[in-house]
Amino acid sequence: MTDLPSAADILARVADTIDTRRPDRGGDPAASYVAKLLAKGPDSFLKKIGEEATELVMAAKDGVPDRIVGETADLWFHCLVMLAHYNLRPEDVLAELARREGLSGLEEKARRPAD
Amino acid sequence: MTDLPSAADILARVADTIDTRRPDRGGDPAASYVAKLLAKGPDSFLKKIGEEATELVMAAKDGVPDRIVGETADLWFHCLVMLAHYNLRPEDVLAELARREGLSGLEEKARRPAD
Amino acid sequence: MTDLPSAADILARVADTIDTRRPDRGGDPAASYVAKLLAKGPDSFLKKIGEEATELVMAAKDGVPDRIVGETADLWFHCLVMLAHYNLRPEDVLAELARREGLSGLEEKARRPAD
Amino acid sequence: MTDLPSAADILARVADTIDTRRPDRGGDPAASYVAKLLAKGPDSFLKKIGEEATELVMAAKDGVPDRIVGETADLWFHCLVMLAHYNLRPEDVLAELARREGLSGLEEKARRPAD
Repeated sequence: MTDLPSAADILARVADTIDTRRPDRGGDPAASYVAKLLAKGPDSFLKKIGEEATELVMAAKDGVPDRIVGETADLWFHCLVMLAHYNLRPEDVLAELARREGLSGLEEKARRPAD
Repeated sequence: MTDLPSAADILARVADTIDTRRPDRGGDPAASYVAKLLAKGPDSFLKKIGEEATELVMAAKDGVPDRIVGETADLWFHCLVMLAHYNLRPEDVLAELARREGLSGLEEKARRPAD
Repeated sequence: MTDLPSAADILARVADTIDTRRPDRGGDPAASYVAKLLAKGPDSFLKKIGEEATELVMAAKDGVPDRIVGETADLWFHCLVMLAHYNLRPEDVLAELARREGLSGLEEKARRPAD
Repeated sequence: MTDLPSAADILARVADTIDTRRPDRGGDPAASYVAKLLAKGPDSFLKKIGEEATELVMAAKDGVPDRIVGETADLWFHCLVMLAHYNLRPEDVLAELARREGLSGLEEKARRPAD
């Protein structure tokens, strides 16, 4: 297990892989699903975000853990493709979540004494 | 910067905080937005996933980076609330992304020589 | 029952009512939900379309007829608000459905002998 | 123009055609798109509702009338497929819209004097 990347590395690694698929960086739409989405432009991956969100909602209604995890992974993956198109990184989203977590920590008053 | 948590810690920390809001763990629906969503049940946070996905699509169409990041954070946050309800963790989603990344690495054949 | 409008009249009537709520035709955002949506601009009612679509999906997964009908009505209603904003009419959508029905009739070959 | 069906007839006709595609009424999933959706079950057409709603939102953001009408037609069409699966009719949705229109008429107080 020592070779497994940390969770942060996973998002960054997937984002790095997606970046190599960008048509402007040599990604080949004929060979790669991600390159094809990026070459087609925003509507192609934004449509997938709507579609995967709906599939996640249906998996959750069915309450099947494996499908819930798989559909959430699909949704986040297409979010990473979208972020790449706009030259954004998952780290930007995580920083925003951290910022809100900090604000929430203040607002909701010391819920974790040892923090 | 030494006090900032790593990205992995951020997802885990937000998930931990959400867990403390679970009504079955003392979360107070009157005091916490997350506790209210969890107390109302799946339709409340699944509806938010559909809503946030739509808002993300609109922000992306407008091409405003800050809104794209903010809406992605909103979407992922509500995914974390949903995962908590089903006793799942962001680590499960990240492991699935890592598994696919590995498979993709095999399928797409040594795209990164130094890997 | 003789006073009930036909189905066509219903869509047209709802569209007419929505038109009277347009801020540029005297609709008052403080007094009318539709006027408020139209005054806020596209993102407000487009967000509702995403939200109502998700609620319809959940109602359908639950298989409760009354909720399915109610959520479909919600979705179509917000589509009518959207159409009004773009100076379009439900008749335009019905004409498109009729056009496809006709095409489909040709493509799928005389499925209804008496047509 | 005398041969064009009324708007009400269009929705009813499309619903009638969809009904003939039901696998339990002889619809052939190999020959008909609608029969295939109905044979696959709810997730197949509910996923389409989420997808078409997202495409409509994108068309509206782009403000292209033809695409807005086409995507609304797509969305309503898949709603009609969904209604068929649950043994519901577009007339049920129109009746609900009429009921609300009546209520709204009362609530919003005689906005149309001649009504």
